Amino acid sequence: MSFGIGSEFRMTVFGESHGRCIGVVVEGCPPGLEIGVDDIQWELDRRKPGREATSSRKERDLVRIESGLTNNRTNGGPIMMMISNEDTDSSWYDRNRMVPRPSHADYTAFVKYGGFNDWRGGGFFSGRITAGMVMGGAIAKKLLSRRGVKIIAHLVQVGDVRAKGEIPDAELEAKARESPIWCADKEVSALMSEELEKAKSENDSLGGTVECRVLGLPVGVGEPIFDSVESVISHGIFSIPAVKGIEFGGGFGLSSKRGSEANDEFAIEGGRIVTQSNNSGGILGGITNGMPIVLRVAFKPTPSIGKKQRSVDISTMKKKEIRVEGRHDPCIAVRAVPVVEAMVATCLADLMIRVHKIGRVEGKI
Amino acid sequence: MSFGIGSEFRMTVFGESHGRCIGVVVEGCPPGLEIGVDDIQWELDRRKPGREATSSRKERDLVRIESGLTNNRTNGGPIMMMISNEDTDSSWYDRNRMVPRPSHADYTAFVKYGGFNDWRGGGFFSGRITAGMVMGGAIAKKLLSRRGVKIIAHLVQVGDVRAKGEIPDAELEAKARESPIWCADKEVSALMSEELEKAKSENDSLGGTVECRVLGLPVGVGEPIFDSVESVISHGIFSIPAVKGIEFGGGFGLSSKRGSEANDEFAIEGGRIVTQSNNSGGILGGITNGMPIVLRVAFKPTPSIGKKQRSVDISTMKKKEIRVEGRHDPCIAVRAVPVVEAMVATCLADLMIRVHKIGRVEGKI
Amino acid sequence: MSFGIGSEFRMTVFGESHGRCIGVVVEGCPPGLEIGVDDIQWELDRRKPGREATSSRKERDLVRIESGLTNNRTNGGPIMMMISNEDTDSSWYDRNRMVPRPSHADYTAFVKYGGFNDWRGGGFFSGRITAGMVMGGAIAKKLLSRRGVKIIAHLVQVGDVRAKGEIPDAELEAKARESPIWCADKEVSALMSEELEKAKSENDSLGGTVECRVLGLPVGVGEPIFDSVESVISHGIFSIPAVKGIEFGGGFGLSSKRGSEANDEFAIEGGRIVTQSNNSGGILGGITNGMPIVLRVAFKPTPSIGKKQRSVDISTMKKKEIRVEGRHDPCIAVRAVPVVEAMVATCLADLMIRVHKIGRVEGKI
Amino acid sequence: MSFGIGSEFRMTVFGESHGRCIGVVVEGCPPGLEIGVDDIQWELDRRKPGREATSSRKERDLVRIESGLTNNRTNGGPIMMMISNEDTDSSWYDRNRMVPRPSHADYTAFVKYGGFNDWRGGGFFSGRITAGMVMGGAIAKKLLSRRGVKIIAHLVQVGDVRAKGEIPDAELEAKARESPIWCADKEVSALMSEELEKAKSENDSLGGTVECRVLGLPVGVGEPIFDSVESVISHGIFSIPAVKGIEFGGGFGLSSKRGSEANDEFAIEGGRIVTQSNNSGGILGGITNGMPIVLRVAFKPTPSIGKKQRSVDISTMKKKEIRVEGRHDPCIAVRAVPVVEAMVATCLADLMIRVHKIGRVEGKI
Repeated sequence: MSFGIGSEFRMTVFGESHGRCIGVVVEGCPPGLEIGVDDIQWELDRRKPGREATSSRKERDLVRIESGLTNNRTNGGPIMMMISNEDTDSSWYDRNRMVPRPSHADYTAFVKYGGFNDWRGGGFFSGRITAGMVMGGAIAKKLLSRRGVKIIAHLVQVGDVRAKGEIPDAELEAKARESPIWCADKEVSALMSEELEKAKSENDSLGGTVECRVLGLPVGVGEPIFDSVESVISHGIFSIPAVKGIEFGGGFGLSSKRGSEANDEFAIEGGRIVTQSNNSGGILGGITNGMPIVLRVAFKPTPSIGKKQRSVDISTMKKKEIRVEGRHDPCIAVRAVPVVEAMVATCLADLMIRVHKIGRVEGKI
Repeated sequence: MSFGIGSEFRMTVFGESHGRCIGVVVEGCPPGLEIGVDDIQWELDRRKPGREATSSRKERDLVRIESGLTNNRTNGGPIMMMISNEDTDSSWYDRNRMVPRPSHADYTAFVKYGGFNDWRGGGFFSGRITAGMVMGGAIAKKLLSRRGVKIIAHLVQVGDVRAKGEIPDAELEAKARESPIWCADKEVSALMSEELEKAKSENDSLGGTVECRVLGLPVGVGEPIFDSVESVISHGIFSIPAVKGIEFGGGFGLSSKRGSEANDEFAIEGGRIVTQSNNSGGILGGITNGMPIVLRVAFKPTPSIGKKQRSVDISTMKKKEIRVEGRHDPCIAVRAVPVVEAMVATCLADLMIRVHKIGRVEGKI
Repeated sequence: MSFGIGSEFRMTVFGESHGRCIGVVVEGCPPGLEIGVDDIQWELDRRKPGREATSSRKERDLVRIESGLTNNRTNGGPIMMMISNEDTDSSWYDRNRMVPRPSHADYTAFVKYGGFNDWRGGGFFSGRITAGMVMGGAIAKKLLSRRGVKIIAHLVQVGDVRAKGEIPDAELEAKARESPIWCADKEVSALMSEELEKAKSENDSLGGTVECRVLGLPVGVGEPIFDSVESVISHGIFSIPAVKGIEFGGGFGLSSKRGSEANDEFAIEGGRIVTQSNNSGGILGGITNGMPIVLRVAFKPTPSIGKKQRSVDISTMKKKEIRVEGRHDPCIAVRAVPVVEAMVATCLADLMIRVHKIGRVEGKI
Repeated sequence: MSFGIGSEFRMTVFGESHGRCIGVVVEGCPPGLEIGVDDIQWELDRRKPGREATSSRKERDLVRIESGLTNNRTNGGPIMMMISNEDTDSSWYDRNRMVPRPSHADYTAFVKYGGFNDWRGGGFFSGRITAGMVMGGAIAKKLLSRRGVKIIAHLVQVGDVRAKGEIPDAELEAKARESPIWCADKEVSALMSEELEKAKSENDSLGGTVECRVLGLPVGVGEPIFDSVESVISHGIFSIPAVKGIEFGGGFGLSSKRGSEANDEFAIEGGRIVTQSNNSGGILGGITNGMPIVLRVAFKPTPSIGKKQRSVDISTMKKKEIRVEGRHDPCIAVRAVPVVEAMVATCLADLMIRVHKIGRVEGKI
């Protein structure tokens, strides 16, 4: 088991896709942070189904904050937030319980939990669990924003459609928000939408890539060796369903580079040390270097597709074909954009709090 | 701080590049496992400098097992192992202490530790710390091998030279061991060696990619949501210096695929459930599905190169050029091959132990 | 922060005394355990106010199980349970917010949380938070009962009234349940009730001691050095408000004994190894030895009393007298009996699950 | 397994009584702390055998600091320290391997570790493991002393001999150090020594009680609910072999008190808030209140005694008498005095570092 993440700032999710609710408990938020329901609802609405290119499941996803606030400020205690499940229909799942959907958790969950797992809508393996991550991440984002830290994710690839050029950091957020699918390039966004429609109409789905940038972090965040910034963030990111890859800065592209090309040379700018390129993605030795963190996350195509697929019936151990019904997103990466932000925020809030508090002890170097 | 990793099987590393030693404490190894010094030494020798295409630092790296064994078997207590540092020369570092090497941890460590970090050879940020990981991983590998689990890493890319075709699982280990740089394709291995020589002769370095496959894992390992197999392994892998990306199964390639191409359909083979492709890399919903785990790790080029680079003097906050001397590997990915194996083994040993022991409680599904 | 306890079986509490609710998330319960609302409600009712010798706050405390069960069985996911707060009156607290009650957390919480703590009814420092512990513990108790483990707490001291003689293990549960205050000796129970009435009528309160016995544990539970059974249980027990001492087996009495008196000699009984006395309280080297665990917990008197007491006004830093109003238990130890059981159960469930799963590796001793 | 303790300041011990060494790895010490070998050695010498009223095992216990320091200051990395075992004689243990000593871990370790445990001298269950705790604690003590925190333990009971009166905080350390057995009352110290000699001459042993006071802590340390100061300290203390009880402030004595007697009323003294009594032992709601922490720890008598005792032979499952040979302390509590200090220091260093660093976020109460 492990439904919680974080050491000093910790989030624990609960709920199932077709159960009563989805929720989260956030521990470790410093006291005095002003939080409104709107702060949470705004983020939840970004990942809600029913938007363009998403599942047609109708969920209002209205957050209830049940603890942790006194007079709209964090009181030092755990913040419990939850939303109800309203629009569930388990009939298809009941009929197909013994036939695992290809590339889904149905089969592995059945074995691991001895058949007692909640098969309806994938139980807690459903993408719906990410609503909990988004609620928790909203607290982290608010906390970090008070420290001048901004976290912006955007869609850079859907199937074969890729973003072109580099959007400057300062324009990224505004541009991404103009797009219903968080693609910061208007033209590419339109192409992606077409691609999504096409896949959907063919009962198929698409993979995609989300990029996330973090601006405004101080130098010195990260706890090497084993809680490097990359370690902690990747741990969180791979908890998002359907993620199959992550890279920081130059990432896999660095495998084919030479040191003389890849190294980020130092310079002084405005009285502080910067690097002239950012192949390191803002992280050196697992510690932030003051440059933007840049990371990219690969999502596999939604495994639930309307096409016929080969599977097996676990109860008879015989072959059985399956055609997944229900309302599924044609591309997980689209709705995952706010989820990536939430998870990066959560991981960084934890690392920020863990920076040595009683600090340097004495003397001079 | 975080020099330990793992929950029930835990490894804690210690030591600095130019300090007295490098070592590790391994906790949680089940009692009764037969361990010989050779089991550890064999793995250490694989990552030792002085082999082809590696640093010329001369270290014997003879392991001493200081606790945890009684009559050559694990006794349930922590296993402490260490090697001495012998061939250190700190003079270059002493002279350049205030001039951080580009793309190294020198600068971030200086800020984070208030200048008290060990600057000599990078202190605990040195690749030498991976000797501790290898010693700890050797215990994990031995433990897993007793459960029928095999972990094989090999070099698939150095600069622009890439492995071609797919080596079958059954041949991989033997073929990789034939190559001095763990590249399982003889021809490609020779090309990589040339590329490495060339970069070295030009005072430059190269990035590379290591692939790792895990064979023989049972279904059901992994602790979702937050301790998915991918989360736990990526956490460990990003603790290896110079790693900038990781992907599982189809990885980033899945971003441009459709669900109908990417999904791994189920079939029955020899009485057990298998998948007909392995784009999932052996993991569904964060849980092993009985197929091989396949992952790839991207390493940036060694940042220490003999070419002149721009940096700054931290004490004067003025520009300063730097030319790194010392004995450095032309490509970190080469010596990282056994390190990747060690870290994957350590993470999986922990997850194997965490599989619910008291298991299914009662009744039938 | 730390609102969660446990490594593989973990419980995270949330809520405030005068907030909307009190609740708990339980992670790590093995799948397939049958749980009814009644299992939880029965335990909650035992600690509910309004019983003899308790606060007159009227709370129905009806549990809602919001996640983690499918068809009344644990499904491997987190179990979220909550109760609403209904009968709250914060007016006294609002008026006295700046005057900390002696021996309460008011003052330390004010400083630690910068004044943002929830002052109404003590916020999450209230004894009401133990309702979360009891709900979580009910799951642990059910799980342990399926393994043949029984956990029975009873009241052995209230003020100067002490239980006499030793109740045999087999009779303890039945006898304790006959008493409205869980004192297994009928006569003593009556004396305690008198003592409680007297203190209450004098606007005063009383301390008390709870004993807990655990029957049916196998040999080998406990994770030394640092997660000894005593370490883990005491960690949990000291999280219950008002606890100031704990002892196992002979406890403080052993300080004045000789080894020859205190040692528990071994014998064979019914084919298994037992000890002829139980000064060790069922634990040797931090590991269960198959004998009953016996522990005693000291509770300080309820600090909220109706008598005038000296305090200070934090906002003016001047002396100020205080007379606590509101509905308070005359002796915390009484309602703490089911809480002690819950916490011991939670800690032991965690340790039971952590017993090495892949066990002894090979060979013979 | 669990050979490590602490979250942000963590100590991991290793070694066996008759193995090659005993050692510790300390993680999380802030960088820049000046540490000399003498700081560690001084503490080690206090617990060394060979002093009055202790085992006659001859160990020099010379500490080697193997990592974590650069120019005698902490460098932010893990500090590994170790001592060698020199004067071991395993012959008695080899002969009696199958006959567990009463009230020792021999039996439970045999079962838990499947017979693979190190039986010689108790393996890692030996009191010798506390040398690791003392080395680790020495770092914590040094760190805390730089923050003005002082930790003083002293012997208050040996068998039936009890300390009388209350030694003022200011005199405690000096007085305790005058006594070879750390009893701060000269007269009582002499009586205790007599008692110890008598027990020893009769091949018997004695229990004892150690009190520990912590002076100079700020208000606000401790992480409720579950990492209250009492929870964290008791967790550590019960990891010391032979501890069977712990109490804070008024402790078990509070069970027989009324609230009006037990409550610590607030007052203002020198501009800061104090309490007029200290039945809370410096802790309210699990958080330090600025008054001295006071705790008492009960040690059972050394179980290894020279008298004949009844046991069983595990291999034959038949009764067998045993008479423990070897060199054992007549009273564990004596040498445990510096161990209690070390463990309290370690736990408090962790809690001090965990105090919310980014603290109060904004605004006013």
